[in-house]
Amino acid sequence: MTATATAQRAYNFSAGPAVLPVSVLEEVRDELVCLPGARSSLLEMSHRDKTFVDILHDAENSLRSLLNISDDYAVLFLQGGAALQFSMIPANLLRDSGKSAAYIQTGTWGKKAIAEAKKEGPVEVVYDASASNFNHVPGPQDYSVADDAAYLYYCNNETIQGVQFPTEPECPSGVPLVCDASSDFLYRPVDINKYGLLYACAQKNAGPAGVTVVVIRRDLIDRGSVSLPGYLNYKNHADADSEWNTPPTFAIWVLGKVAKWLQNDIGGLAAMETLNRKKASLLYDAIDQSGGYYTGHAKPECRSLMNATFTLPNDDLQSAFLAQAAERDLVNLKGHRSVGGIRASIYNAMPIEGVQSLASFMTDFASKNA
Amino acid sequence: MTATATAQRAYNFSAGPAVLPVSVLEEVRDELVCLPGARSSLLEMSHRDKTFVDILHDAENSLRSLLNISDDYAVLFLQGGAALQFSMIPANLLRDSGKSAAYIQTGTWGKKAIAEAKKEGPVEVVYDASASNFNHVPGPQDYSVADDAAYLYYCNNETIQGVQFPTEPECPSGVPLVCDASSDFLYRPVDINKYGLLYACAQKNAGPAGVTVVVIRRDLIDRGSVSLPGYLNYKNHADADSEWNTPPTFAIWVLGKVAKWLQNDIGGLAAMETLNRKKASLLYDAIDQSGGYYTGHAKPECRSLMNATFTLPNDDLQSAFLAQAAERDLVNLKGHRSVGGIRASIYNAMPIEGVQSLASFMTDFASKNA
Repeated sequence: MTATATAQRAYNFSAGPAVLPVSVLEEVRDELVCLPGARSSLLEMSHRDKTFVDILHDAENSLRSLLNISDDYAVLFLQGGAALQFSMIPANLLRDSGKSAAYIQTGTWGKKAIAEAKKEGPVEVVYDASASNFNHVPGPQDYSVADDAAYLYYCNNETIQGVQFPTEPECPSGVPLVCDASSDFLYRPVDINKYGLLYACAQKNAGPAGVTVVVIRRDLIDRGSVSLPGYLNYKNHADADSEWNTPPTFAIWVLGKVAKWLQNDIGGLAAMETLNRKKASLLYDAIDQSGGYYTGHAKPECRSLMNATFTLPNDDLQSAFLAQAAERDLVNLKGHRSVGGIRASIYNAMPIEGVQSLASFMTDFASKNA
Repeated sequence: MTATATAQRAYNFSAGPAVLPVSVLEEVRDELVCLPGARSSLLEMSHRDKTFVDILHDAENSLRSLLNISDDYAVLFLQGGAALQFSMIPANLLRDSGKSAAYIQTGTWGKKAIAEAKKEGPVEVVYDASASNFNHVPGPQDYSVADDAAYLYYCNNETIQGVQFPTEPECPSGVPLVCDASSDFLYRPVDINKYGLLYACAQKNAGPAGVTVVVIRRDLIDRGSVSLPGYLNYKNHADADSEWNTPPTFAIWVLGKVAKWLQNDIGGLAAMETLNRKKASLLYDAIDQSGGYYTGHAKPECRSLMNATFTLPNDDLQSAFLAQAAERDLVNLKGHRSVGGIRASIYNAMPIEGVQSLASFMTDFASKNA
């Protein structure tokens, strides 16, 4: 069964939920019916059981260690995905603050976040890349943020468009920087101290769907009003160590295993970044060396290391590309309808062999169909 | 591995997350690394992938078939647990309605729901069983509900106290009946047409933590204001078939398997009820025939078929009971601190053999320690 199941797997370029390390999946499988040392499956275990509480703390500590997160920050495991964070952030940090929140809009997810924030208070969109169909991110000279802004919000990697900030945007000191890191969490070392709040739903780079990690500086935790719906108040979750209500235990368990894989099998986030740069180069080189056969969507200086987006000369060729790729075990490459073309998501867990195979197919396909 | 893992399992009386059918766990294990017919694990699959969309619809259809839910109702799969429903219900159905919502308080979960509802609008607690430490539920003569109430809310089974409504509370026609069925969802056939909204987090009777089922009559879906946080508006989820954002795919997959187990292995909810009554009788008979050695918390007429709560003559005996039970593979029997004593949760998936073993141990223990 094991060998067969693994052999049936293709290289899966899905944008999310997305590829996970095979070793993690095999461990989950082996421990599924009865957690070693416990008397039941993890799925059947009270979240108050010491075994699960240890798993939760272990996952938190692995994240703290990978990202070097100090005790100035709380690490929360929540439900509701990025979509609920779009509301929780302004509900806690903007509503009734008397301030305005600054948003940088570089793609679909930033746009959705802005729509939710406007329900909670005044929003200033300090940079909007929509006129160029979100093919770039701004430099520091392109926008300015008021010194008294409630916070500056941005999305580090726009999954649909495949644009990524090469470094954090500049932000006045005293203004909390808030980052949606959903699709590039843990892809490289990050200086958490630059952020007021950084969050990521797990299902792209860190685990299965159903859990969202929120790293929040402790001075920001208490800003939500007691009149907020209880689930939406960060303080409730922080005070209860992510057990204000039953957390998504399975997703946290798997996320902890992915974090351990990053530490032990990959060797930490610096090693992960090296590997991610190597993987992304394979694809962008195939685009750049195709003599214009493939057209990248993102401007070269802000190409995403996670999601490579590009188009072919026409729709027929795109269909042929997808069909022939699938025959080579390269699947889920179709781009999002708002950008079209091809999107290859090459998250942390995508093996370099998969990217090599895709790059080589791209070169073959272009030479045969040019 | 299989035989060993299963052999290590004990009879797990956890109140939640709680016991699941072994056959479901084994199926999840076998399909974990690569979903048969797919090219990846379910955990790695886009929620827009047809394979997952079919799984979602399948889970919905199994619930519709088990509970005979007509198309007058939507079935939603949400995140955030019962705790988020405590807020979503009044945010959608009470806020700005100009009405007052009626709540029946028969235990800890009803109390928490009331605290959240008060943030959204006027609440009338039409019955409060707290003075008797929540040991009973009211009869129809014990409370009255205004004809123009926004809704009547109650919790069908209070997990901590072990009290359960033997039938739905009476409710004026025209007032939507709203039910927290988290801890006894699917335990017997229910006439959904009596309800405006019935919801259940999965982790007690229907699956793993991380997904909450909301069955909502379609005329109630549109009541939420567009100014609500998007995730909190039922309309967004209903319009998008539970894919307004990425749903908790794994939890939905497992919940679907549990629903199929109820249909195919158990034979539907009428058969499940027969079995549940048989299991509960074993425990309550052991209490009633102990000559007062065991004292049940709930009044006999509203004893829960899901959570049997009782005390022993003193704390030392309770500790000895728990220790000796564990030696017989009967685990997680400690009661909640607010009630004390013993709580045996005997949800749908608890095999009758486990309950027989516990009942026989109770009788032995009482005779040796009386």
